[in-house]
Amino acid sequence: MGRGSTLVEKIIARAAGVDRVAPGQLVTAQVDLAFAHDSSGPRRWAPMLRELGVGLWDPHKVAIVSDHYVPAVDAESARILKLAREFAAEHQVGAFFDMVGICHLVLPEHGLIRPGAFVAGGDSHSPTAGAFGAYAAGYGATDMAAIVATGETWLAVPETIRVEWSGRFGAGVAAKDIMLFLCRELGMDNAFKAIEYGGDTVEGLSMAERMVLCNMAAELGCEAGVVAPDRTTFDYLRAAGRPVEDEAAALALASDRDAAYAAVHRFNAATLQPQIAAPHDPSRTQDVTEHAGIKVDQCYIGACVGAKIEDLRMAAAVLKGRKVSPDTRLLIAPASQKTTTTATQDGTLQTLMEAGAVLLPSGCGACAGYGAGVLADGEVCISSTNRNFKGRMGSKEAQVYLGSPYSVAAAAVAGRIADPRQFLGEAA
Amino acid sequence: MGRGSTLVEKIIARAAGVDRVAPGQLVTAQVDLAFAHDSSGPRRWAPMLRELGVGLWDPHKVAIVSDHYVPAVDAESARILKLAREFAAEHQVGAFFDMVGICHLVLPEHGLIRPGAFVAGGDSHSPTAGAFGAYAAGYGATDMAAIVATGETWLAVPETIRVEWSGRFGAGVAAKDIMLFLCRELGMDNAFKAIEYGGDTVEGLSMAERMVLCNMAAELGCEAGVVAPDRTTFDYLRAAGRPVEDEAAALALASDRDAAYAAVHRFNAATLQPQIAAPHDPSRTQDVTEHAGIKVDQCYIGACVGAKIEDLRMAAAVLKGRKVSPDTRLLIAPASQKTTTTATQDGTLQTLMEAGAVLLPSGCGACAGYGAGVLADGEVCISSTNRNFKGRMGSKEAQVYLGSPYSVAAAAVAGRIADPRQFLGEAA
Repeated sequence: MGRGSTLVEKIIARAAGVDRVAPGQLVTAQVDLAFAHDSSGPRRWAPMLRELGVGLWDPHKVAIVSDHYVPAVDAESARILKLAREFAAEHQVGAFFDMVGICHLVLPEHGLIRPGAFVAGGDSHSPTAGAFGAYAAGYGATDMAAIVATGETWLAVPETIRVEWSGRFGAGVAAKDIMLFLCRELGMDNAFKAIEYGGDTVEGLSMAERMVLCNMAAELGCEAGVVAPDRTTFDYLRAAGRPVEDEAAALALASDRDAAYAAVHRFNAATLQPQIAAPHDPSRTQDVTEHAGIKVDQCYIGACVGAKIEDLRMAAAVLKGRKVSPDTRLLIAPASQKTTTTATQDGTLQTLMEAGAVLLPSGCGACAGYGAGVLADGEVCISSTNRNFKGRMGSKEAQVYLGSPYSVAAAAVAGRIADPRQFLGEAA
Repeated sequence: MGRGSTLVEKIIARAAGVDRVAPGQLVTAQVDLAFAHDSSGPRRWAPMLRELGVGLWDPHKVAIVSDHYVPAVDAESARILKLAREFAAEHQVGAFFDMVGICHLVLPEHGLIRPGAFVAGGDSHSPTAGAFGAYAAGYGATDMAAIVATGETWLAVPETIRVEWSGRFGAGVAAKDIMLFLCRELGMDNAFKAIEYGGDTVEGLSMAERMVLCNMAAELGCEAGVVAPDRTTFDYLRAAGRPVEDEAAALALASDRDAAYAAVHRFNAATLQPQIAAPHDPSRTQDVTEHAGIKVDQCYIGACVGAKIEDLRMAAAVLKGRKVSPDTRLLIAPASQKTTTTATQDGTLQTLMEAGAVLLPSGCGACAGYGAGVLADGEVCISSTNRNFKGRMGSKEAQVYLGSPYSVAAAAVAGRIADPRQFLGEAA
């Protein structure tokens, strides 16, 4: 055939020990990094490994991050966390991160996500790691137990969809708006496909924003999301203390010019408006102006997708010199301890606290219905998280809208869904 | 008789509309302020008031503070919070504080605790308000419902115990050490008594530290704890935006020289060592050196008694330039939003985060077994809270030691109980 390979195909071929792969082909891949959290990991793995009479295939390639049941809110969650600690110690898992943040951010912060790696994660938002030019997919607990026991997994090579964005965002628009827009445009039923993001907009995005794109590949139903590694990737990993050794090899991971895609879509970032997804589905997205005025009981900034330092800075840009409306409440759960520490150093947290935000612990929290900030019957919330499925954030009778951190902060000021652009530019 | 009255007797006499009262006398007092939280208040009051067919006797004299089920961690807690919000709106309770901190700190922060007031609180640590020269006692939910319906309550006038402290604390010693010491010295069975704190040590304490003394009157089993109002009291209330109008009248509340006490105890603050209470009772107190070396899984700074800005600064003094030991974890739940905001402004939070503390939401939290930070079977914790009764902080198989914020921070650095004085003075 002679045609080139996509980024995803190159990674899978290397992990499968073959020259090239084609979509649909069944291969067995060697896993470079397997990770899970306290909910999906040790408590599920331990009995299966015990039954099989085996240990971890390679403790140096396994990472465990306690982020779901943190901090413990009852004896049961305390027990689950204790089990994770004991498992990590018993199996000598060096990359054990206990209550320091959400796995999808903590692993990059420690430089553990490498360009070209085949990553298996025990969480649906594992595709986040694709922002670093890794192939990262989510697996269920049984599959993960097999992976950590053997170090390999089989898969059908996914087709790649390419989405290109060009132009610069207007004020108050962010990667989150891209993803809510794409959930509507591409739908949420893209199984057995990977999504590759490119174009000058994406090339200009920070790693944090690229992580948003790849994270919400999960909402599109894709197996994985990827962005080709570049200077921005290398700078991030150098700052994380784990520089890329062979940058040329990482750059060569980019999809070949003659790679075959299942589809190519092109969009203009310059005309993208702030997007809001209505309950109970991320694909029910419209421009913010279509939802403006809807009263909200709670504004929530949290989760792997929506509470990195860059997200908190977006919120602070809106909240600087303003106050949270007495008609609502603003909860902020920074995605990691490092996020909070940086926010204390650069003044972001001071701005948020002075505006009246309520600070929550770092962890998956209310996004997944755990921990602080879940909703009561009949309550309406706007959230920077990635999913608004019915009942996910507490009561099945609650309504959750999704938006960027800009849009959530704007709703906090107004007490209702509002266009964030009216609060940017000049302080109140 | 001609003998004088104690501070407590003066307040009760005024509230009962009589010239003077004697210990043991039954009186009916008009309540100046009735408060409760989300756990003890609206959800308990609403059905009783409905059954009686009555409303609040005076919404201007009722305060409600949501601090127990905050932020909601499940649909049930979300429902309880929503009920509190709806009750406050329906009954036009102006002093409704939603998720901004623990009632015993939030009410003083807003200047609502007044010298000479008779305060009825729906929480066992209601005596905290006595730091302002108020008589403040805790009531059960049924009594509180009657109080908010009628504005009055009967009581037997308690005897007063006077405890005098003289001299200055050494480094690493705080009001918390006084109270742990007194729990051992006086025992926990002082029902039908009020405790009055005086002496030059107490006169030199901040309001925050006086609040610690009065808060833990509850652990002594006393009905109330009091400190006579003075310049420090006035300065605090002026800063809170609600200055005392008649300072002379407030000063005249002080116990008369010829007042009769059930007992008078005198102690020397200068020789007081840091104190640690062993499980499962605040009276099992010894000098920190007696417990040094005990490994701790968790170090917890939280609660009305132990997480004010002054407490966080004590912890920061120990943690400055140091790191939390990898053998333990340090959780910090600031007692109020204002505490966190101040800590972001003055650098305290930055010091704590850089040391590796995990920040939790403001509220009663794990101290009362709610929210983040509860313990698993077999875990050992040192805590700046006021009670270490079996099972209160999660598992009944957990062990909780009590200490000052200095001592908790020292244990965080050492990974085991340690004398805080070794970490004060010079940074690592």
